[in-house]
Amino acid sequence: MNLEGKQKGFVLWLTGLSGSGKSTIADKVHERLVGDYKVERLDGDIVREHITRGLGFSKEDRDENIKRIAYIAEVLSRHGVGVIASFISPYKEERKKVQDKVTNYIEVHVNTPLNICEKRDVKGMYAKARKGEIPNFTGVSDPYEEPENPHISVCGDYEENLEKIVNEVIDYLRETKHIM
Amino acid sequence: MNLEGKQKGFVLWLTGLSGSGKSTIADKVHERLVGDYKVERLDGDIVREHITRGLGFSKEDRDENIKRIAYIAEVLSRHGVGVIASFISPYKEERKKVQDKVTNYIEVHVNTPLNICEKRDVKGMYAKARKGEIPNFTGVSDPYEEPENPHISVCGDYEENLEKIVNEVIDYLRETKHIM
Repeated sequence: MNLEGKQKGFVLWLTGLSGSGKSTIADKVHERLVGDYKVERLDGDIVREHITRGLGFSKEDRDENIKRIAYIAEVLSRHGVGVIASFISPYKEERKKVQDKVTNYIEVHVNTPLNICEKRDVKGMYAKARKGEIPNFTGVSDPYEEPENPHISVCGDYEENLEKIVNEVIDYLRETKHIM
Repeated sequence: MNLEGKQKGFVLWLTGLSGSGKSTIADKVHERLVGDYKVERLDGDIVREHITRGLGFSKEDRDENIKRIAYIAEVLSRHGVGVIASFISPYKEERKKVQDKVTNYIEVHVNTPLNICEKRDVKGMYAKARKGEIPNFTGVSDPYEEPENPHISVCGDYEENLEKIVNEVIDYLRETKHIM
């Protein structure tokens, strides 16, 4: 199957709080595109498994972490692959580093309010963070620097509108000719 | 430029002693293909810079090292890129791990005799290894397990025949329809 010419390489970068719905949206977007386009999912679990094992939460380790992710996203996007990446990535500086490195960076702010993320608390992380059991937890004891000009901003309160959000993202990719 | 259909994804894996000429050959092959095909170079310097910083020479670190390289080679080859990788990779087991993971693994044994590699000693590593200043140095104080059935075997005593070796590798890629 000839997929070339049907797409450009790009990096769709979903940023947002823990529990905002980034991964669910990214998975659905990937599911809709895979087979028709060359796409690759990247998220915390995938990179920890393959390239960032052993890194912690110190400034140095965070920098190294984002550098490795940016490298993978860079080579893939340069070779025409659409990378669908979901990372909390709370700091403007780290998102900027990715943007500067890769081909066709598209920022998606999954702008779900903290109280909804916390209420959802799928992994029980917020409860632990509130008890002080998890230090430097984004939104609780560590800042989330909101994107100023994301290409797409969606609210991940998706119980009712996941499909609508996924359509919005895919429409954007089409309109901007990242996929044909 | 539409490069798709002109090639398959593959991993050209050059293995051999330090100083055997792996990198020189790999660089030349890359130079000949880049522009016409989607190709990506991987070697020790590149992966240390991007994904394996901090790993040492313990069994555990070596395993982690090869796992990360295999991951990069896997995603790239799966998406149709030709990876040109040069690593000493002295153990059969680690080469097997790469082979099992990636798409279209092609093993190139750069079979330059130890005495030539040592005489060349571009980085002065053999001299240090002989003095015991570098422990576990492949060929001196650590084994090199020769490939049993490499797809290509060349002698990297290339002062006179580098061009011939590069042609042989590229002809192989063409004959086996990895590039058209």
